[in-house]
Amino acid sequence: MKMDLTQTQTNLMINAGMSLIGFIVCFNILPKFKEMFIRVNLFGIDMSKQTKYKVPEAQGVICGAVFLVIMFLFLPVPFYRHLADGNARFPHHEYIEYLAALLSVCCMVFLGFADDVLNLKWRHKLFLPTMATLPLLMVYFVNFNLTVIVVPKPLRMYCGNLVDLGILYYVYMGMLAVFCTNAINILSGVNGLECGQSLVIALSVLTFNLIELSGDSHAAHEFSIYFMLPYIAVCTALLYYNWYPSEVFVGDTFCYFSGMTFAVVAILGHFSKTMLLFFIPQVANFIYSVPQVFKFVPCPRHRLPKYDSKLDKVGMSYTKFKSTDLNPIGRLIIKVFRTFRVLEVIESDEFVECNNMTLINLLLMYLGPLHERTLVIILLTIQVLCSGVAFFIRYQLAKVFY
Amino acid sequence: MKMDLTQTQTNLMINAGMSLIGFIVCFNILPKFKEMFIRVNLFGIDMSKQTKYKVPEAQGVICGAVFLVIMFLFLPVPFYRHLADGNARFPHHEYIEYLAALLSVCCMVFLGFADDVLNLKWRHKLFLPTMATLPLLMVYFVNFNLTVIVVPKPLRMYCGNLVDLGILYYVYMGMLAVFCTNAINILSGVNGLECGQSLVIALSVLTFNLIELSGDSHAAHEFSIYFMLPYIAVCTALLYYNWYPSEVFVGDTFCYFSGMTFAVVAILGHFSKTMLLFFIPQVANFIYSVPQVFKFVPCPRHRLPKYDSKLDKVGMSYTKFKSTDLNPIGRLIIKVFRTFRVLEVIESDEFVECNNMTLINLLLMYLGPLHERTLVIILLTIQVLCSGVAFFIRYQLAKVFY
Repeated sequence: MKMDLTQTQTNLMINAGMSLIGFIVCFNILPKFKEMFIRVNLFGIDMSKQTKYKVPEAQGVICGAVFLVIMFLFLPVPFYRHLADGNARFPHHEYIEYLAALLSVCCMVFLGFADDVLNLKWRHKLFLPTMATLPLLMVYFVNFNLTVIVVPKPLRMYCGNLVDLGILYYVYMGMLAVFCTNAINILSGVNGLECGQSLVIALSVLTFNLIELSGDSHAAHEFSIYFMLPYIAVCTALLYYNWYPSEVFVGDTFCYFSGMTFAVVAILGHFSKTMLLFFIPQVANFIYSVPQVFKFVPCPRHRLPKYDSKLDKVGMSYTKFKSTDLNPIGRLIIKVFRTFRVLEVIESDEFVECNNMTLINLLLMYLGPLHERTLVIILLTIQVLCSGVAFFIRYQLAKVFY
Repeated sequence: MKMDLTQTQTNLMINAGMSLIGFIVCFNILPKFKEMFIRVNLFGIDMSKQTKYKVPEAQGVICGAVFLVIMFLFLPVPFYRHLADGNARFPHHEYIEYLAALLSVCCMVFLGFADDVLNLKWRHKLFLPTMATLPLLMVYFVNFNLTVIVVPKPLRMYCGNLVDLGILYYVYMGMLAVFCTNAINILSGVNGLECGQSLVIALSVLTFNLIELSGDSHAAHEFSIYFMLPYIAVCTALLYYNWYPSEVFVGDTFCYFSGMTFAVVAILGHFSKTMLLFFIPQVANFIYSVPQVFKFVPCPRHRLPKYDSKLDKVGMSYTKFKSTDLNPIGRLIIKVFRTFRVLEVIESDEFVECNNMTLINLLLMYLGPLHERTLVIILLTIQVLCSGVAFFIRYQLAKVFY
């Protein structure tokens, strides 16, 4: 045990060292690639700025590539003793976890980049990530196949202490990957937000892993840390350039890459519920967005806040439509949201105007127009506070229910 | 054994069925994506046509994606019995081969697409494929670590019957991946050639695998067939649209995807020497190209044959430079090539003009200007003949030397 711990510490230090190098590499090459992206029309114009520069898009692809290279180079490290031993009893079952995880991540970086370049359709965005998780789920099946969940105490009288979800558990894990990926993608539109929220989540996961590292599922958390440290490294470098005012945009590539990285460590590390706790703002944003995402309420192409160039502040953005265009469900939703004061509705003649249903607009509804940097700082503070709540639920509240 | 053979046959039939579906899918979706690619400037103008349509580029990315999806869905099949058995004695060591192979292929599809979109630099094109083979080489190390080669009889008096190449064998395998990838990429520039040559190579590999399927290394060749059938399926669909006159271009993505697919089956199937035999035209083209690729002789951006719109035929293309620009090595090379009549050189005053050093130009030197379709048919016939020679060497000549 003593020996093992030292070995883990050495591996973690090597991983941290390689991550640091990865950070330096990312930090240095990101500005160098700017021109290359702009030249091939991979750029956007920042809608919330007075100046209208070309800002390179899809820079997450560089982070993704650097992340993959770090991981490929790191791969032999956790298996060093076995490799040096001449392969006797090589732990193939552990190695497949790394390979399956990297395969899923690589697929998503590729898919994200294809999406940034080609603007894929929604059916591709749901179908392909599902495919990309299949090898991962198969590894879960052969290595663990734990599909039993512990029932919270208040419900035990109805369904017993344990429930075996069987195949449903796999559906849940497959959906987790799709959810993580898209949840980050739809909480966006403000400089530094995609990158910032992902960094907060990654740091929360890392903290959780470090707490649990001395516990029973030591190996799972070690595995997670090996992925989180390089991720945090490339993410930090990207955030530096993506921070207000953005010199680069992260693109769908980054959201896909991040979402899948979180999903793989959660699935193979058996902490998908805890992972979801770190996604509280994203879950809230997703639930609030449902009426627009599923078209019960008309949804414009972009829902980012509206920029007021005179004040240099961003405010709520609205969607306007004929009241007759709304079906009964849409009408009900608007009524309910209005009752709970989470939606601003302006009715005039035959038109209805309401704010776009995003967490960002909801925040702006209460705090008024804000400077973009202030807005992102508030949003990230909320993310940090929610991580605090997550830890409280995980370590205090869970005791009551389990 | 009886049982095993039947199992293999069933698996092969499932693989063939899925490949057929893959072909149909590819065949149907390729035309539908054309507009999407043209819209984002991923198109080229065919230089060897009288009409100047926009032809979508990088269509290999669709084939690559379909190939990956087929493989992800097929993955459980070879392991079905173990999965149904409840994972007792699951052959992790076999599964990692699939995962590592797919990881390498996925990386290359991604890299190829990034290259098509961003026009990467040479250092990226050499560095990233090398990284992408690392997980594969690690699998080779833990599963086989066979680095011993059998010495041909005439050399045995010098170095014995067997030579252990050790680390050099890994360097060789790493270079094989880079070579396969780039060798297909530089034998191109005529409608249907990249795709056609890859299809001939794939069919040759498949034939070889089928011959060897009843032999000792049964598992390795089964593994290879599982990759070759889906590859042949997507490649055939692409060739249909890429054939003269091309409606789509395959892009670097396709060459990278193809090269890595060949490299992974050759490495994990232990038949890298036989694989190289199927690459005879590519090897010849590469050797002939060396003076230009390594800049001993000036190399223009494109070396494809020159189109004569009056005749609707393609002829040799030339590169022109000052004779003083040539260093001694370049001068020597031109002299040697000229002596062996494999280079046409026109000298005038201070300028030298010689044909670009590609197999295609060499062919055109002897057969004169040809219609593009005739040219590609001749080139593919050569590829088929060379595969015949490869089989002769493998099964007849090898007996003399080993």
